[in-house]
Amino acid sequence: MQKISIIGLGLIGSSLGMALRAPGRDVEVTGYDIDSKVHGRAKKEGAVDRTEWRLPDAVKEADVVVLAVPVLAMRELMSDMAQHLKPGATVTDTATTKRQVMAWAGELLPDKVGFVGGNPLAGSGKSGAGNARADLFNGATYAVLPSVKAPEDCVKAVVAMIERVGAKPFFVDLHEHDTAVAAVSNLPVMLSSALMLAAASSPSWREISRFASDDFKSMTALAGTDPEVSLGIGASNADMLSHWIDEIIAELSDLQEMIVHESRSDKEGPLMQTLVAAWEARKRYEAGVTMGEIERPVLPSAGDGMMQMFLGERIARVFRDGGQRRSDPTRYPR
Amino acid sequence: MQKISIIGLGLIGSSLGMALRAPGRDVEVTGYDIDSKVHGRAKKEGAVDRTEWRLPDAVKEADVVVLAVPVLAMRELMSDMAQHLKPGATVTDTATTKRQVMAWAGELLPDKVGFVGGNPLAGSGKSGAGNARADLFNGATYAVLPSVKAPEDCVKAVVAMIERVGAKPFFVDLHEHDTAVAAVSNLPVMLSSALMLAAASSPSWREISRFASDDFKSMTALAGTDPEVSLGIGASNADMLSHWIDEIIAELSDLQEMIVHESRSDKEGPLMQTLVAAWEARKRYEAGVTMGEIERPVLPSAGDGMMQMFLGERIARVFRDGGQRRSDPTRYPR
Repeated sequence: MQKISIIGLGLIGSSLGMALRAPGRDVEVTGYDIDSKVHGRAKKEGAVDRTEWRLPDAVKEADVVVLAVPVLAMRELMSDMAQHLKPGATVTDTATTKRQVMAWAGELLPDKVGFVGGNPLAGSGKSGAGNARADLFNGATYAVLPSVKAPEDCVKAVVAMIERVGAKPFFVDLHEHDTAVAAVSNLPVMLSSALMLAAASSPSWREISRFASDDFKSMTALAGTDPEVSLGIGASNADMLSHWIDEIIAELSDLQEMIVHESRSDKEGPLMQTLVAAWEARKRYEAGVTMGEIERPVLPSAGDGMMQMFLGERIARVFRDGGQRRSDPTRYPR
Repeated sequence: MQKISIIGLGLIGSSLGMALRAPGRDVEVTGYDIDSKVHGRAKKEGAVDRTEWRLPDAVKEADVVVLAVPVLAMRELMSDMAQHLKPGATVTDTATTKRQVMAWAGELLPDKVGFVGGNPLAGSGKSGAGNARADLFNGATYAVLPSVKAPEDCVKAVVAMIERVGAKPFFVDLHEHDTAVAAVSNLPVMLSSALMLAAASSPSWREISRFASDDFKSMTALAGTDPEVSLGIGASNADMLSHWIDEIIAELSDLQEMIVHESRSDKEGPLMQTLVAAWEARKRYEAGVTMGEIERPVLPSAGDGMMQMFLGERIARVFRDGGQRRSDPTRYPR
């Protein structure tokens, strides 16, 4: 019986617990949350087998410790738990951004344990333990980032855990991870928050809101992300996120310029061509998602995955060299 | 038996037809689309009783004509149909923006018919007749904008039609309508398109897209709006939309400044306070949607609604005077 401890019983922690405790399981799940009021709920909804009142007790016997807390709480948590970990234990996390977490793990966790970073690419828009469910990770991809010093057994343990909850592990380079996540996960959170703020801080918001349909509701859903999580995103991935905010502001300025230009209703004009480019990109993306099983690189299974690290490095190089694209006049028709 | 003709058999036109043809109906629905290839499909899926090959034949006997075409196609359509309309007929439309449509109707439609603008506030993200369904308007609010010259009988006919498809009509001032729609409907389309363009035009998009979860998919859904519809939005509401693009760029710049500032991880700092403000606004909005039945002004039923026009005018004044809000330092904590 493998012992897994989950620290932090929010949406991700509780959902992981539920999924790990599925029938036929060979794991025992211990839960801990800094807010012990949630312990009762976690037990009741089947997220954990038992809870502990003190952090040291929650981790001392664990084979695998999952840190499912906001990224800004990671440093203190690692520091507090470091001396209580079992030799040979595996520590993993679920933070959306990875550079800070990997650095803190290297600095604060003892050599006798192995740290393997993780990021389940499951929706963050529905944060809160109340939305936890056993199938949250079913079919989701799950990024895996072993620390340089992590023994292969620890990597295997994390990959096995990911597969057990129905997700698909894939190995990825640290730099690639944080750039990509900044674009498709962090930026949308800021965009959604900016939209909510722009609309709601209008003195006419009460009247304006009567015109909001499901589209607006869905575009502002991510503004409802736990502010501590959003803060962690901004704080831990500031450089990458700032780059992508530049990109989106540039796109919006371009669109605005075309919208106020006199050719704006021209069906062959630049506004139409840009909107068609966006529409085509969305259709291609949608199709890619559907055939994701075919298109994506073969996923490493437990044990044979380390080689994929080289792939991550190659891709990271593309990112580093690709920063100049806005000056490319062929990007889409003007 | 009332005769209703629907011109344009896309998502809105087909869904309207399906809803109007519900059991117990007392209307006959004639359909027409400039692309006659869709006529067969519309009949097969029950959106219309019959179709006509020529526009004049489609409108000449109609008591109510619904123009469900992209806003940029309205002018030509009105011009082409004007001389074929029955005296006393009611003409309405479903465009998202209203100032141009109302102006064209005043200019092009004969005095013997009454024009009453309409905008069903149902999701546009799923455009395309393939997504048409009889319950699309069920519970949705539906803006009604009678032209100055429209006889009360025409207003009643449109309100009755709206109630028949399960939507809730509300009367609104033209200026108020287009400003509000720019904020909560047009701006999200441009935002979603900008996000899709920013991400997809990166040379690393193929790799980045592997990290996209459902959140990204939902944030880019509106980029999949029919480009002709998006073009119409930009072209027909350029001034209002441009104002809101300014607002969102200002919000994004503020967020970016706070994200790169050294206090970015401070839980009492400006970034956290701003994210909390966005989160609170989203929660309040969500709660408001839930209790919408209580909060919103009483909706006019057929016949007694004209008085509400004064309410629209009062609100429009608030909009016109409210343009200075960005300089208000009390808006949310910095």
